Amino acid sequence: MSDNQAKFVSYIEENQKKLIDSLAEVVAIPSVSGDASYRQDVFKMGEWLKNKLSTLGADVSAHDLGMQVLDGKEVPLPPVIVGSIGSDSSKKTVLVYGHYDVQPALKSDGWNTEPFELVHDEKTGCLFGRGSTDDKGPILGWLHAIEAHKELGLDLPVNLKFCFEGMEESGSEGLDEFVVKNKDSLFAGVDAVCISDNYWLGTKKPCVTNGLRGIAYFKLAISGPARDLHSGVFGGMVHEPMTDLIKIMSSLVTPQGEITIPGINEQVAPLTDEERKVYDVMDFDIAFVDEATGSKTTVSDNKPDVLMARMRYPSLSLHGIEGAFAEAGSKTVIPRRVVGKFSIRLVPDMDPGKVIECVEKHVESEFAKLKSKNTMKLSPDHPGKPWVADPKHWNYEAAFKATEKIYGVRPDLTREGGSIPITLTFADALQKNVLLLPMGRSDDGAHSTNEKLDLSNYVKGTQLLGTYLYEIAKASQ
Amino acid sequence: MSDNQAKFVSYIEENQKKLIDSLAEVVAIPSVSGDASYRQDVFKMGEWLKNKLSTLGADVSAHDLGMQVLDGKEVPLPPVIVGSIGSDSSKKTVLVYGHYDVQPALKSDGWNTEPFELVHDEKTGCLFGRGSTDDKGPILGWLHAIEAHKELGLDLPVNLKFCFEGMEESGSEGLDEFVVKNKDSLFAGVDAVCISDNYWLGTKKPCVTNGLRGIAYFKLAISGPARDLHSGVFGGMVHEPMTDLIKIMSSLVTPQGEITIPGINEQVAPLTDEERKVYDVMDFDIAFVDEATGSKTTVSDNKPDVLMARMRYPSLSLHGIEGAFAEAGSKTVIPRRVVGKFSIRLVPDMDPGKVIECVEKHVESEFAKLKSKNTMKLSPDHPGKPWVADPKHWNYEAAFKATEKIYGVRPDLTREGGSIPITLTFADALQKNVLLLPMGRSDDGAHSTNEKLDLSNYVKGTQLLGTYLYEIAKASQ
Repeated sequence: MSDNQAKFVSYIEENQKKLIDSLAEVVAIPSVSGDASYRQDVFKMGEWLKNKLSTLGADVSAHDLGMQVLDGKEVPLPPVIVGSIGSDSSKKTVLVYGHYDVQPALKSDGWNTEPFELVHDEKTGCLFGRGSTDDKGPILGWLHAIEAHKELGLDLPVNLKFCFEGMEESGSEGLDEFVVKNKDSLFAGVDAVCISDNYWLGTKKPCVTNGLRGIAYFKLAISGPARDLHSGVFGGMVHEPMTDLIKIMSSLVTPQGEITIPGINEQVAPLTDEERKVYDVMDFDIAFVDEATGSKTTVSDNKPDVLMARMRYPSLSLHGIEGAFAEAGSKTVIPRRVVGKFSIRLVPDMDPGKVIECVEKHVESEFAKLKSKNTMKLSPDHPGKPWVADPKHWNYEAAFKATEKIYGVRPDLTREGGSIPITLTFADALQKNVLLLPMGRSDDGAHSTNEKLDLSNYVKGTQLLGTYLYEIAKASQ
Repeated sequence: MSDNQAKFVSYIEENQKKLIDSLAEVVAIPSVSGDASYRQDVFKMGEWLKNKLSTLGADVSAHDLGMQVLDGKEVPLPPVIVGSIGSDSSKKTVLVYGHYDVQPALKSDGWNTEPFELVHDEKTGCLFGRGSTDDKGPILGWLHAIEAHKELGLDLPVNLKFCFEGMEESGSEGLDEFVVKNKDSLFAGVDAVCISDNYWLGTKKPCVTNGLRGIAYFKLAISGPARDLHSGVFGGMVHEPMTDLIKIMSSLVTPQGEITIPGINEQVAPLTDEERKVYDVMDFDIAFVDEATGSKTTVSDNKPDVLMARMRYPSLSLHGIEGAFAEAGSKTVIPRRVVGKFSIRLVPDMDPGKVIECVEKHVESEFAKLKSKNTMKLSPDHPGKPWVADPKHWNYEAAFKATEKIYGVRPDLTREGGSIPITLTFADALQKNVLLLPMGRSDDGAHSTNEKLDLSNYVKGTQLLGTYLYEIAKASQ
């Protein structure tokens, strides 16, 4: 470790209180993007970030993305905060992404503490609060890495650019267009991208992530009567849309998770022996899944099978039905129109267009079999492609080395089951290698009640992000 | 027609304005039983009825049914208004049932007029307003029949008892117990029961109704994870409750309405040739169903098959799923627990207990086939037996004759697809013949927007109810 690097790591170690205090400050701003009544807090959080970056010496600007309709009213979208520090042409330029909005949270949802008050539980070492791990902790990690250098009077080893958005929890509205539009201006000169917005596979061993599943989301509508009918009066006389829909939905996937739509599984990249072995050594146990789901419901008791089910195979989930009776109690309605919602998680080498075609063909064939007088319409949402980055790239090598230095272990190379669409946007728009470098653990409860970030993850994660920049600087392109 | 009978019929003919005015008065009281904020109006309507019956010379009392929890607060149940006119032991005693509460209605639901203002459209002859046909018009029919006799100075041909409740649209809470408790006091001496709270089969020909389907309602819960999961992170790794539930729900009924649960269809009373012929001559056309449903979705194009599907065969409807994603839009959730709701309409000779047994056995067997680690629980609601009355009874003969006198045709003898639980309560508790004698037409839109009662149905219906009492008096027991 170089002198500067070592000084930085020690500084973070010695200034943990600063890290905690600043996290408490931002957790207290309830920047919930999905609820119009919190919109001013999202703006407040954007303003906080802009000021902080400015204080740290960054060129920073807030970019208006226009308006959106939320909860029935038109509200302004939170700005994208873009910043840059350094423009030394002899240094590499790293673009860092994060989001400053959070999921909704109410104490009554089942939190043990006030969600928008950071609580440091010294017994467990956990920092509880909405946004602690998703994604305010990681954003502060970057800021503290810069601040440490400023306080220590050290130059940063790379040029940094920042892109912090306030709409990630609500579909990143407007961000894609913004990135594409500004790829040759605000984002010009970027050599690599780093996103710290995911989690370790387990709770003990760090990982770097080079793949995400894509998604194809479908809405399958069956319409019949012009109005909801009473099942006493009409039951038996008419073709019921629910009966048709349930029949078709039951033809998509087995209880074991095998997709039964012809042409889907054939698109999946074959498993090589080499890849197969990777899953054996990952820091993972079926018990992690059991703990996360609070149940013993894995489709297999075999660790590699369960890992592969998440990382490298597609899955199909039936999410629900719009238009049917969904409340508690008993209601004897024949719904006039029902819309089944399901989605397929996509992996290499699946092509979203081809997947949509297979689904269309299958549901049409299944519907024809029903000989129903109702009508059917399948509406696919705009799909998201799967993403895989080359882990042999210097961006990844830097992350591996930095992790070894801070944690003393070679991290697992993982793929995530979910989608982070901005990853693909950066990869496609900038044509640069994108790295996912998580700070938190799998049990942090992002999006859930009692979200937390372990103080050790926060401190070591901040050391990791800074150290990664040093390793980037050393790497040969 | 006897002298008195003829005078009565003429009186109603000549006093149509009175009928309209009183209907306007009661429609203006929004006695919505399903919404706590209207509870005082339900009471007001009960009070109105009590006063009216009293003015007409009845002994009348309001009976408290205690409290209920509605919209999260405890509110008093509307009273049952019980009245009697006459106690001449040489006359028969007829018990009349009606309900003075109504379904909710807001103009914004799609009404063309204010729902709680009676509008007489002279072009179509329709009286629009919530409760006009269900069930305030029929209740007023009885009251005007009595009033006419009072005005004309005539004795009623029978003794009358009344039972008017204010909770029919909300499950008749408390009424069953009330009837059973008072069968030998308030309801002692009743010879026959008449309920005017259903509709003609079509729009042209009157009917009397001697059968109702029963119902067995089921809630099938599948539970897996302890919390909702993200389909990106967990999709493919776990047994998903929705997948299991959809598989089981798809095994209950075909799109053609055939119940595929072993042991159900075997319980249905065989169709006799004589019964089969009845369906050929009923005032019914597939076009009625098409008009009512606003679609062409009948399971058959054959009139008797469609009629029998409603009147004499069971049906199974899938109502919806609680716990799954039911909103508009796209959400990538794996719901932790989903509850499928379905019900079976019961006909003679189906036994609710045996039906529940068959369903239990079937879903257990289907669930076992899935080899899922989730858990399943079936909860049947308290079932309602099917009801059929003997149409050769003098109560029915009186209704047939009265209809012939007022409408000039022999009415269809129909069965209804739905349930009116109080029918069975009266039949079981009092052990007397119960008759359903409708006033309105099939297209009245009870429970729907723009509910109406044709003025001609109101006038002739009132004449019919009064004439029925004369025919009762003439009938030999």
